[in-house]
Amino acid sequence: MLSDQVKLDFQRRERIGFDEAVLCEWKSVEQIGYILQTAVEAERPLLLTRLTDVKLAALPEKLRKNIDYDPVSRTGFFAAELFVPSHAEVSVVSAGSSDIPVAHEAIRTLQYFGIGASEISDVGVAGLWRLMERIDAIRASRIVIVAAGMDGALPSVVGGLVPGAVIAVPTSVGYGASDNGRTAMNACLASCAAGLAVVNIDNGFGAACIALRVLRDTKAPQYRMLLEAAVRE
Amino acid sequence: MLSDQVKLDFQRRERIGFDEAVLCEWKSVEQIGYILQTAVEAERPLLLTRLTDVKLAALPEKLRKNIDYDPVSRTGFFAAELFVPSHAEVSVVSAGSSDIPVAHEAIRTLQYFGIGASEISDVGVAGLWRLMERIDAIRASRIVIVAAGMDGALPSVVGGLVPGAVIAVPTSVGYGASDNGRTAMNACLASCAAGLAVVNIDNGFGAACIALRVLRDTKAPQYRMLLEAAVRE
Amino acid sequence: MLSDQVKLDFQRRERIGFDEAVLCEWKSVEQIGYILQTAVEAERPLLLTRLTDVKLAALPEKLRKNIDYDPVSRTGFFAAELFVPSHAEVSVVSAGSSDIPVAHEAIRTLQYFGIGASEISDVGVAGLWRLMERIDAIRASRIVIVAAGMDGALPSVVGGLVPGAVIAVPTSVGYGASDNGRTAMNACLASCAAGLAVVNIDNGFGAACIALRVLRDTKAPQYRMLLEAAVRE
Amino acid sequence: MLSDQVKLDFQRRERIGFDEAVLCEWKSVEQIGYILQTAVEAERPLLLTRLTDVKLAALPEKLRKNIDYDPVSRTGFFAAELFVPSHAEVSVVSAGSSDIPVAHEAIRTLQYFGIGASEISDVGVAGLWRLMERIDAIRASRIVIVAAGMDGALPSVVGGLVPGAVIAVPTSVGYGASDNGRTAMNACLASCAAGLAVVNIDNGFGAACIALRVLRDTKAPQYRMLLEAAVRE
Amino acid sequence: MLSDQVKLDFQRRERIGFDEAVLCEWKSVEQIGYILQTAVEAERPLLLTRLTDVKLAALPEKLRKNIDYDPVSRTGFFAAELFVPSHAEVSVVSAGSSDIPVAHEAIRTLQYFGIGASEISDVGVAGLWRLMERIDAIRASRIVIVAAGMDGALPSVVGGLVPGAVIAVPTSVGYGASDNGRTAMNACLASCAAGLAVVNIDNGFGAACIALRVLRDTKAPQYRMLLEAAVRE
Amino acid sequence: MLSDQVKLDFQRRERIGFDEAVLCEWKSVEQIGYILQTAVEAERPLLLTRLTDVKLAALPEKLRKNIDYDPVSRTGFFAAELFVPSHAEVSVVSAGSSDIPVAHEAIRTLQYFGIGASEISDVGVAGLWRLMERIDAIRASRIVIVAAGMDGALPSVVGGLVPGAVIAVPTSVGYGASDNGRTAMNACLASCAAGLAVVNIDNGFGAACIALRVLRDTKAPQYRMLLEAAVRE
Amino acid sequence: MLSDQVKLDFQRRERIGFDEAVLCEWKSVEQIGYILQTAVEAERPLLLTRLTDVKLAALPEKLRKNIDYDPVSRTGFFAAELFVPSHAEVSVVSAGSSDIPVAHEAIRTLQYFGIGASEISDVGVAGLWRLMERIDAIRASRIVIVAAGMDGALPSVVGGLVPGAVIAVPTSVGYGASDNGRTAMNACLASCAAGLAVVNIDNGFGAACIALRVLRDTKAPQYRMLLEAAVRE
Amino acid sequence: MLSDQVKLDFQRRERIGFDEAVLCEWKSVEQIGYILQTAVEAERPLLLTRLTDVKLAALPEKLRKNIDYDPVSRTGFFAAELFVPSHAEVSVVSAGSSDIPVAHEAIRTLQYFGIGASEISDVGVAGLWRLMERIDAIRASRIVIVAAGMDGALPSVVGGLVPGAVIAVPTSVGYGASDNGRTAMNACLASCAAGLAVVNIDNGFGAACIALRVLRDTKAPQYRMLLEAAVRE
Repeated sequence: MLSDQVKLDFQRRERIGFDEAVLCEWKSVEQIGYILQTAVEAERPLLLTRLTDVKLAALPEKLRKNIDYDPVSRTGFFAAELFVPSHAEVSVVSAGSSDIPVAHEAIRTLQYFGIGASEISDVGVAGLWRLMERIDAIRASRIVIVAAGMDGALPSVVGGLVPGAVIAVPTSVGYGASDNGRTAMNACLASCAAGLAVVNIDNGFGAACIALRVLRDTKAPQYRMLLEAAVRE
Repeated sequence: MLSDQVKLDFQRRERIGFDEAVLCEWKSVEQIGYILQTAVEAERPLLLTRLTDVKLAALPEKLRKNIDYDPVSRTGFFAAELFVPSHAEVSVVSAGSSDIPVAHEAIRTLQYFGIGASEISDVGVAGLWRLMERIDAIRASRIVIVAAGMDGALPSVVGGLVPGAVIAVPTSVGYGASDNGRTAMNACLASCAAGLAVVNIDNGFGAACIALRVLRDTKAPQYRMLLEAAVRE
Repeated sequence: MLSDQVKLDFQRRERIGFDEAVLCEWKSVEQIGYILQTAVEAERPLLLTRLTDVKLAALPEKLRKNIDYDPVSRTGFFAAELFVPSHAEVSVVSAGSSDIPVAHEAIRTLQYFGIGASEISDVGVAGLWRLMERIDAIRASRIVIVAAGMDGALPSVVGGLVPGAVIAVPTSVGYGASDNGRTAMNACLASCAAGLAVVNIDNGFGAACIALRVLRDTKAPQYRMLLEAAVRE
Repeated sequence: MLSDQVKLDFQRRERIGFDEAVLCEWKSVEQIGYILQTAVEAERPLLLTRLTDVKLAALPEKLRKNIDYDPVSRTGFFAAELFVPSHAEVSVVSAGSSDIPVAHEAIRTLQYFGIGASEISDVGVAGLWRLMERIDAIRASRIVIVAAGMDGALPSVVGGLVPGAVIAVPTSVGYGASDNGRTAMNACLASCAAGLAVVNIDNGFGAACIALRVLRDTKAPQYRMLLEAAVRE
Repeated sequence: MLSDQVKLDFQRRERIGFDEAVLCEWKSVEQIGYILQTAVEAERPLLLTRLTDVKLAALPEKLRKNIDYDPVSRTGFFAAELFVPSHAEVSVVSAGSSDIPVAHEAIRTLQYFGIGASEISDVGVAGLWRLMERIDAIRASRIVIVAAGMDGALPSVVGGLVPGAVIAVPTSVGYGASDNGRTAMNACLASCAAGLAVVNIDNGFGAACIALRVLRDTKAPQYRMLLEAAVRE
Repeated sequence: MLSDQVKLDFQRRERIGFDEAVLCEWKSVEQIGYILQTAVEAERPLLLTRLTDVKLAALPEKLRKNIDYDPVSRTGFFAAELFVPSHAEVSVVSAGSSDIPVAHEAIRTLQYFGIGASEISDVGVAGLWRLMERIDAIRASRIVIVAAGMDGALPSVVGGLVPGAVIAVPTSVGYGASDNGRTAMNACLASCAAGLAVVNIDNGFGAACIALRVLRDTKAPQYRMLLEAAVRE
Repeated sequence: MLSDQVKLDFQRRERIGFDEAVLCEWKSVEQIGYILQTAVEAERPLLLTRLTDVKLAALPEKLRKNIDYDPVSRTGFFAAELFVPSHAEVSVVSAGSSDIPVAHEAIRTLQYFGIGASEISDVGVAGLWRLMERIDAIRASRIVIVAAGMDGALPSVVGGLVPGAVIAVPTSVGYGASDNGRTAMNACLASCAAGLAVVNIDNGFGAACIALRVLRDTKAPQYRMLLEAAVRE
Repeated sequence: MLSDQVKLDFQRRERIGFDEAVLCEWKSVEQIGYILQTAVEAERPLLLTRLTDVKLAALPEKLRKNIDYDPVSRTGFFAAELFVPSHAEVSVVSAGSSDIPVAHEAIRTLQYFGIGASEISDVGVAGLWRLMERIDAIRASRIVIVAAGMDGALPSVVGGLVPGAVIAVPTSVGYGASDNGRTAMNACLASCAAGLAVVNIDNGFGAACIALRVLRDTKAPQYRMLLEAAVRE
């Protein structure tokens, strides 16, 4: 039955340049386990997103042991040997420390595909000097991912200061008029700064994928499956 | 009939410190004319807001001639002798030149009540240096009114830079995700800068009234009716 | 890693007149703990908002012992010696007893910054006489903070009765058409009373910050760190 | 063809106590003309609502001449002889003079069905004394219809002061956060005053129909067709 | 402190004909307990709404024992001796058995104030014959309360069939496009049946209060405090 | 240039059983003219929807003369010889006469594809007897299209009474809480009647296309181009 | 009391061709138990939807034992002997494996009424080749049910490729801009593919009911009660 | 006065790599004229967007003559000598011919900055073969801009087929559930295809600016002012 429900798209890298990731949020533990088993058989590593520690703990130990898990970003690398990038090609900027989980989802996704990222945090517009102290480093990046909740003002400010591709990730941080991130999302889309690329609320993964698409001329995603490790156990 | 429909609140200045203004947008020309006539009889000047030039032109000439009308802000001073304030106590900052009508509604309202204002325009966050060039003057104001549409980011940035009371006026400038000003309004309400006072979309009048309430200890509204002028004609 | 995520804005008092507070709702216990530790090192007291008792209990005892915590408003004063204001400069009015937590967040914030406040509760418009009994005291305040959920009608009524600066705090009290406070928020923004300053839903902290901005000419925030206490334990 | 499209519900009075009215807003002039002709043949008078003067002018003169038209409320009485009620059984209260068209739709509907109404206008909560001057008369009414736009606060205040049935009619007066009357409508529904009966935005007709339903024990709708007049011309 | 937060409106019956009820949802157990104690002191019974069994259980036993609690409607009668009405004056109709809790909140409120109600359930429009079997009894009622979720169609159908006052109570039953009751609420407000009185989602209490206002000429609320019982224990 | 912008999908009938129609609302007159010319060259007739009379009049006479235009439904048949169906296979029911334009868009679309339809109008639920008089005829139809605005209650009632496929077409008729048809649309989607097929607001064309898909086993779309007529002129 | 609350519509099959199902989500365990008991007495089997395992476990064992329960779709067949259909008449297509619960609700409902369905899963548009591999089988079905969350794009693509009746079931899978399924629902309603029949979010049951209505000419619902089994225990 | 309102950001190219454009929609003719005059004085060409032909015609002839205006995209090049790019670096794909104005705004913006674009139109997902015929050309582009209204499904499909950076431009084409483009916008943000960069509704200009940011390493914006032409006339 599970084999009828899941059809992994292993041709995706050939088509769009990088592999399918597994969005775990609405999948049952059974489905996730089956997908991992399929990956083992296809000799493919996998990136897992929105994997809670509860679901992780419920996976069979043999599979779980091969997952490099990060609880902050709720991401897992399954059976993947990662190549350490020599320098950062992407800046990941976040407005407040509450936006860290989303920023880390972007950083982990980039890391999985072999792209280095530098992290600049807690530089929201209410204390502009914090951003200004770091702006030269940010300006040097070809791609800048900016995560912000509440008013979503930081991507507009960054977009007016740097020449690189700016990817705005609205976050669900905030209450009341923040509307679970919709205000930040709409503010980024309506930005007075020209040329912001916007993704869904809390979608650090998607922001990283835009970076992958932009960088594909200079960088090929680099990872290899830790096959034996996954099989042996 | 009209006398049954309109009951001007001439006691308002005693209660809250400043007079009722007439919001003309949903009133018929007949109603506006009757209200002005009532003001003549009560020997009171009036501030008119959201008065279109079409309605203005349809008023009886005797009344129209006593209106000092500004087409940009769509405000009119009826039979009021204004006192020129010697210096500016309020800064009125606007993000783009499209926000000027709203900013001017605030300035005209302040002017009607004898408060001087200095205007700083086209300093949106997409070109932050324009704001930074003027920030010292803005910081010196006890009250700063900030009008911005689209992403509504400017009030957040100003709120993080100045110590005075910051009043955010979201404007309906923008399209799509701007949602007729709701995104700017929500962004101001959800601002990461502490202590923004927010008013309704395009409500320059309301922003000015907050200023009147704050300044009332130091300033009494100053105007006198140009009674003879209104009566003679 | 945590040191990369958090960058406290200790220059804020110089810029805007009062210090940064720590919004604890989307921060992890680790992040809050790190922030408190940083404050100890910088010899600064801190105001904590939206701190649940669960997170409070999970903090290291050394830090927790230096927090003066109020469970109703979910606020904490970290290592701060407060100065008792001699009289109330702000009236904090709430429509129903369900609005008390939001009103208390405002009062506690004012208290942290040395501003006295008098509390007037359960005076919603469904029983107008309760408000009328207290209106003279309210009228005497330079600043009136009004918290109301459901229909959000109380700030409009107060705004028509008092000359001071009126700050409306819509609350999330109510169900169905109340829309988690959005109806009260929109009603305050669309108020027929001129010059209401509106803040986000349940944002008692923000309302108090507007008061701080307005009062800064006459009052400087007064508090001092209880340094030894925090360090010793 | 038109005869296929229109099927008047002449049995409605038997079922629910009063006749169908014709909502003209989405009907073509041809449809309205056909409906009136059908009424002539059935020897029935008709109440027309939301009839613009443009559509009125486009009707055949023979029909138009038999319409007693009121441009403020956009209502028409077709071929109806009205009985003058000896006293007012319903109070129709409106917050501002901009709400008059909606209040008059209610009054005209009541008048068509033989119910007298007294009108109390421009008593919005921003100037509460205006309401208080009239409250005794309002309290004496068995039914109170209250029209208000913007914040929709007046029905809540009235609901807390009078014992009769209070019918709230939110109006579309206001801008921005007023959301074309939705904020007033939601505020009435979420009212802190117990037992408000709410109708659709600008629906003065519906409010009057509730009054008809409540009063039906004591009052039978009274009107008779001016048959000859309609037929003769 | 609690005495500062709570100010019961014991004059309400004089003003509007019936007493204040206590909406328990956003009140703490401490607040509810204090309110009950105040009622004891004022020798007044109280109606409690939205009182969960968890909060009930947390109340002091002395108070809890004097509450006649109904778990379906989550209502409690505190220290009230109820008079049994001899016949039903109100019909309470509900579309599905999932709407029963809301219908019962209305019935219990009516019962508290001495008004008899007959209950007609599970007569939604998907099986119209069920309604038609009962329509004669419903038509005989002076007041008909109709609770319906999902599409909210039943009040429109009833409104077209009966002459009495029809009070529509949209409920939050339904999913997806039901939008937590907003679709049913909007459908009732936009009803093609003339003269529906609409209340907030799930507001059975409010519907009953409209009935109290309508019936006040013929019925005075009848209850008396079980004072000794409350005091003795 | 226009040839780059337009690529008609003449293979659609092979794929899905019926031809592409031309939605004219957002197309310029130039684009519509080019599309018609392309159809002439491909020897294909075309169905045009949402074609205003203003755009029709602006088309070149040679093209316009070959359009069989219906102003109520705003549809046009371009160069199509229609086959008269011998009997009605679809019932098209509408709640009020204001819903006629939408109902006629469905009927005209069916007619274009050779499907007969019977029209039942003005049978809204506020006067249920009108529907009951016609219900036997409706029950006999394999497919029932129901157009209704305002509360959108009619499709639910019909869905509970007939065994055929019921297609609900919410219309934009109504004001305020009707929300331009969204309330009717949501009510149909949340219907308590099982198995309603819902289409977009005012989408009579889409409803007819569902009928085409359902009926395709028994009926092949029947029309032929009036080629010579289109070419000759 | 429960007998007053529940009135099963056992005539529904005669009216619309298939029996009422029991939507368990807002019903109490007591209500569900009573309904099942009623079905036993009426000698009728029942389909239960949205029955959680928690409620299932709380039912009396005698009833529970006669429920054939599927935890993925949360459906139960009470006391029904099912007939195995010889071949699939409906294709049930789902975009991702997270949409399986909704797809299975449709399949189980069809199965209950004796209709065979073939399942095609995980063929979302991000990997179009997966759909293309299966498209011939899908094209052969008279009815195609398509479940998709997030962007809801799959039904549009399928609608452009197959001639059968296409029923779109938006699902609540997705976050942020997905808006709990509203975006998918709106996308299906606004589809560029002509003739999509849309149902409520997650409403697999409703989709199956449309199929029942369409197929009724060729298929009569086939099931028989397992009476003795239910009674004996 | 106008000089106070407008402050062009001529340093923008230095900061972000390309010049400010003038969004004309909310600017008065006087403001636009003043801005153009300022550009003449600064010897800078300008890109004008959302310039209606009515406003164009109202500009002084001297300025108007120097505007290369395109009525479809409503863009103007003021006094700019454009360099013809030798080949297309960007594919601009649109779903229907109604989306052409938005697609052309992107193409014109790219053209202004010296970037060649190839146009692929009318390839919406309802006729997938049209897209498949062109997919190889699209796959060869480093950047793909996709404009689509209604269901906004095309960007998801393209995103799953090509490796380049995909920029989704939702358009306001569609009615009812399309919600003026919000459904398409949300569908793009919630896309199942990884790595879509989304911009505001109808924002072809913004999409082109993302392309400029991505391409800046290989392409410098190329244009020169036609100074004499602007000055001479």
